[in-house]
Amino acid sequence: MAVYTDVAAEDLSAFLAAYEIGELLSYKGIAEGVENSNFLMHTSRGYFILTLYEKRVAAGDLPFFIGLMEHLAKNGLTCPQPVKNRAGEALGKLAGRPAAIVTFLDGMWIRKPSAQHGAALGEALARLHLAGADFPMRRPNALSVEGWRPLFEAAQGRADRLQPGLCDTIATELAHLEQHWPRDLPQGVIHADLFPDNVFFLGDRLSGLIDFYFACTDTLAYDVAICLNAWCFEPDHSYNVTKGRALLQAYGRARELSSAERAVLPLLARGAALRFLLTRLVDWLDVPPGALVKPKDPIEYFRKLRFHQAVGTVRDYGLD
Amino acid sequence: MAVYTDVAAEDLSAFLAAYEIGELLSYKGIAEGVENSNFLMHTSRGYFILTLYEKRVAAGDLPFFIGLMEHLAKNGLTCPQPVKNRAGEALGKLAGRPAAIVTFLDGMWIRKPSAQHGAALGEALARLHLAGADFPMRRPNALSVEGWRPLFEAAQGRADRLQPGLCDTIATELAHLEQHWPRDLPQGVIHADLFPDNVFFLGDRLSGLIDFYFACTDTLAYDVAICLNAWCFEPDHSYNVTKGRALLQAYGRARELSSAERAVLPLLARGAALRFLLTRLVDWLDVPPGALVKPKDPIEYFRKLRFHQAVGTVRDYGLD
Repeated sequence: MAVYTDVAAEDLSAFLAAYEIGELLSYKGIAEGVENSNFLMHTSRGYFILTLYEKRVAAGDLPFFIGLMEHLAKNGLTCPQPVKNRAGEALGKLAGRPAAIVTFLDGMWIRKPSAQHGAALGEALARLHLAGADFPMRRPNALSVEGWRPLFEAAQGRADRLQPGLCDTIATELAHLEQHWPRDLPQGVIHADLFPDNVFFLGDRLSGLIDFYFACTDTLAYDVAICLNAWCFEPDHSYNVTKGRALLQAYGRARELSSAERAVLPLLARGAALRFLLTRLVDWLDVPPGALVKPKDPIEYFRKLRFHQAVGTVRDYGLD
Repeated sequence: MAVYTDVAAEDLSAFLAAYEIGELLSYKGIAEGVENSNFLMHTSRGYFILTLYEKRVAAGDLPFFIGLMEHLAKNGLTCPQPVKNRAGEALGKLAGRPAAIVTFLDGMWIRKPSAQHGAALGEALARLHLAGADFPMRRPNALSVEGWRPLFEAAQGRADRLQPGLCDTIATELAHLEQHWPRDLPQGVIHADLFPDNVFFLGDRLSGLIDFYFACTDTLAYDVAICLNAWCFEPDHSYNVTKGRALLQAYGRARELSSAERAVLPLLARGAALRFLLTRLVDWLDVPPGALVKPKDPIEYFRKLRFHQAVGTVRDYGLD
């Protein structure tokens, strides 16, 4: 749960004086996003989200995120739209932190997504990739294959506390991925964290995408692999081929996966599983005993990795 | 920061089907209240607050709280108004917990209240006491003088870790208060926790009171004493007599304090200081090292207690 920084009403009102969004009527710290402090503001002009960027987000990356949301919104994707102040700036400073205001999106995230939700997600993901194609800024993915070994080194001495043999499995997988990771697939803007809690629905209709703070320039099909992991497994860790097919087919209707992308999807899915296994593992080992925040279970992603290791071709994911 | 329980959109939509508040468009866990999980909901009919009552609130007390908010709202006090479902019930069950929906109030709480804010608070407090006069339900105050010794016993062995001599000071004060606590002053509904974060303002106008989950039947002037402690001290722990006078005079204009109430106000203020010193002390000692939630500082209330011990008459608070 987020909200790390308290903002005084007096300070927020002064900050908003530079914007043309009306008079502040209320604001509440909200439990959304795990990296930043977020507030839902009500002003005489409507509802807005205020984000204070905490230390885990590099200030130098903010123009990329803000610019990307603006670019995507202009290109027809429903996502939060940065609100500029009178000086034309979308990025300000509040409570000693970089701060931005974005428009408020209705919609709710689905705890148990169906194949239909997965199809909507697949289409939105392809549209995100297409809309991002002419975005001029670049941001390397710090959590792609080059970033995994440092995470492993931070965790390896303690990984077996979670499950005996975990350390060896990761070491072998990491070496394999480092050797075989594809370098020549189509690249572009990827969301890189499009889990169900970042995708809003109104009924069965996808109403918007949020939380672009892992977005970066990377292999587009890797983003598909991240979503396969995040959307197509059941709570018992089994892969649901109906959901996978729905997601992949819907993606393909908007942006066709090349044969090269299809061939390497199982490898990308292993990489995506390892990436979340590693970050969850580090978070898990870093949380002090007795803390009120319960970190996400790394073993969920260990099981997904095991599944992808046994996959032969993209047919196993539901694509013909 | 609150939000202990996650609620699935699917479950919330099903829950709302029993209400006539329109279609659910969005909801966010909000950081408000420390005892319960709160969500700000947007429906096609407007904005509402959903509260899930966590374990620290006794289910048997909920009809008192809900009934009180309803009673006060009917009597012209701006506070959250419980929303009933089609069966006429204001209390339901969601995610395994008692749950209630109340109307959303605009306004913000003031981090650095002025004398003007204090005067608005004093008037609202008196109006709350008057509006509660004919509320038929009763709820004993578990955190009045009878409740302090058990708290002290839970903390006394470790109290001196915070400040040497703290344990002795509390023991002496507690014995004094138990012996001299007044029993014959006017009683009625008190809020019992009317700190600045439970009082909303729009500009300098008080726009509503929230969080009635410590409300109970007790000595009215004790509620005044709680507010003197919560509103009239500066960050350096000094008492601001201008703020105290503004609060007490505004209260008196709406509900005059009797000479008996005025005479015993210093003693009630000592009791109020001890009550928050004790609950903060217990919370402080209970938080595991390394936890992300920082408990409130008990020493702040130790300093306030020291101030009140030196007070002679109500003149020292700013009243003539």
